[in-house]
Amino acid sequence: MLVKSIEEIRKQLLEWRNQTDGQGLKIGLIPTMGALHEGHLSLIKKSIETCDKTVVSVFVNPTQFGPSEDFNNYPRTLENDLKACEEIGVDVIFAPSASEMYGEVYAPSPPAGEGRGEGSIRLSNDFLTYVVPPYFYVDKLCAKTRTGHFDGVCTVVTKLFNIIQPDYAFFGQKDAQQLIIIKKMVKDLNIPVEIISCPIVRDENGLALSSRNKNLSEEGKKEALVLSKILFNIKCCYEKGITEIKALSETAQSFLNENHELEYLEFVDKNTLEEKTTADDDTIVLIALKIDNVRLIDNCFIK
Amino acid sequence: MLVKSIEEIRKQLLEWRNQTDGQGLKIGLIPTMGALHEGHLSLIKKSIETCDKTVVSVFVNPTQFGPSEDFNNYPRTLENDLKACEEIGVDVIFAPSASEMYGEVYAPSPPAGEGRGEGSIRLSNDFLTYVVPPYFYVDKLCAKTRTGHFDGVCTVVTKLFNIIQPDYAFFGQKDAQQLIIIKKMVKDLNIPVEIISCPIVRDENGLALSSRNKNLSEEGKKEALVLSKILFNIKCCYEKGITEIKALSETAQSFLNENHELEYLEFVDKNTLEEKTTADDDTIVLIALKIDNVRLIDNCFIK
Repeated sequence: MLVKSIEEIRKQLLEWRNQTDGQGLKIGLIPTMGALHEGHLSLIKKSIETCDKTVVSVFVNPTQFGPSEDFNNYPRTLENDLKACEEIGVDVIFAPSASEMYGEVYAPSPPAGEGRGEGSIRLSNDFLTYVVPPYFYVDKLCAKTRTGHFDGVCTVVTKLFNIIQPDYAFFGQKDAQQLIIIKKMVKDLNIPVEIISCPIVRDENGLALSSRNKNLSEEGKKEALVLSKILFNIKCCYEKGITEIKALSETAQSFLNENHELEYLEFVDKNTLEEKTTADDDTIVLIALKIDNVRLIDNCFIK
Repeated sequence: MLVKSIEEIRKQLLEWRNQTDGQGLKIGLIPTMGALHEGHLSLIKKSIETCDKTVVSVFVNPTQFGPSEDFNNYPRTLENDLKACEEIGVDVIFAPSASEMYGEVYAPSPPAGEGRGEGSIRLSNDFLTYVVPPYFYVDKLCAKTRTGHFDGVCTVVTKLFNIIQPDYAFFGQKDAQQLIIIKKMVKDLNIPVEIISCPIVRDENGLALSSRNKNLSEEGKKEALVLSKILFNIKCCYEKGITEIKALSETAQSFLNENHELEYLEFVDKNTLEEKTTADDDTIVLIALKIDNVRLIDNCFIK
């Protein structure tokens, strides 16, 4: 079932909650930006296993894109997404418009270059209440280049939590920093939901699945294997006993060429994002780089 | 019943919600900082009339006080508050400690002058997810001198909403800017609660009731009548046909003396806080001033 309005999905959810003598059915939510791939489907399967009803939201959220980012270019495949969700047994797909989500703060004809999500859509930050994660968690990794990105993520996820009021919400380990920030937000704001994280899904060559892979050329897809190669090689070196960050970082060099615009390669604590001085079993290695101007991220637990 | 832990109050609320065949009892919340007076009691009575169960939270929230503000000096009268609540028929008083509300981000021994709520309590903003109202609503009135105040208010109110999950929450018109900001936050973040506003309660001389009145000397209490005198006089002038803001503002001068440290006297739209150029029926007049170093606020609808 496809639902586009907040009022309608609330009505449906209320009906479900009232079904079982006040105990309520358990609701699972998978927030997505659509262009669903096997990574998303693994989250959805997990929810269907765990919960009585599964809601998938499909919303390319303008507030998490910077003015020079790929909001307009982000893959949109709603018909395929609906088909995939129905086949797998999703109960509701919630796919609101930007104006349904952001109402009067949504301005359809932006002056070029201003606001978040340049192009066909624009939000005035002046008129929207934001949920802002702590500096400590955002002053690093993806947030270094994506100013305000996690404000947009936390804000839209809070809105979805308030609209759906799920018992469980499922997020992929692929967006590791996002996962940690959302767990922190849920704890800090006492949001009554349990966050379930699921492992990264990779293709047969090791490439982490991502909606943005659709924007890569055939050549780019081959080049993109560099991310997982660098990570797996570091994992391998650690297993052999190398723990010095500098030494582990340097192993990446031999994989990189002029087509790879490396943004970061970092070693942090898997729970706190605190930078490691020496790698240990709690270390997570994160990488971000651009290929063909498509920004890709990947990560792995070192052990 | 007094409850101090989040876990315990959630358990109690869940029990109530499950009582009536899945329809649930209607829960009302009155968030307060304690030192309850007739103003608070009017909100509580309204909730008892409207809802099946009424929760009053009593929490002097450190994140909404600036370092040089009166956090340590804010009146605390928990025993009296409990008695008043029980007499009137409140079902639960939720009075958590700062560490119950802010957990690991709460640091008990602050370096002087740093963080919010200097003195016996301090929070590190670096480690807490904040809910931040839009600049447009906070770049004026109380927020001009109270930097970050409404971030603290929105954050703690969001936390209380997530802990209690009330159907209705009651706020006084006395804190007019706070009321508008909270309504905006609820709308922007799709929080499933209805905000009910209640009129200002005044003593027999016209002084708006406030917990901070307890910090005034006898002489100060007389001086404090200047707030309502200025407002009522402006209201009177408007009724006589004066609509020019400059003229209306000037009528305040004759009431002020050297004991009054005027912070602002402003004319704004009652729904949007937008500054008025000419007074009309949608205008609200707001005043803030200090007497004996106690900061007092008041407001009235011009019509």
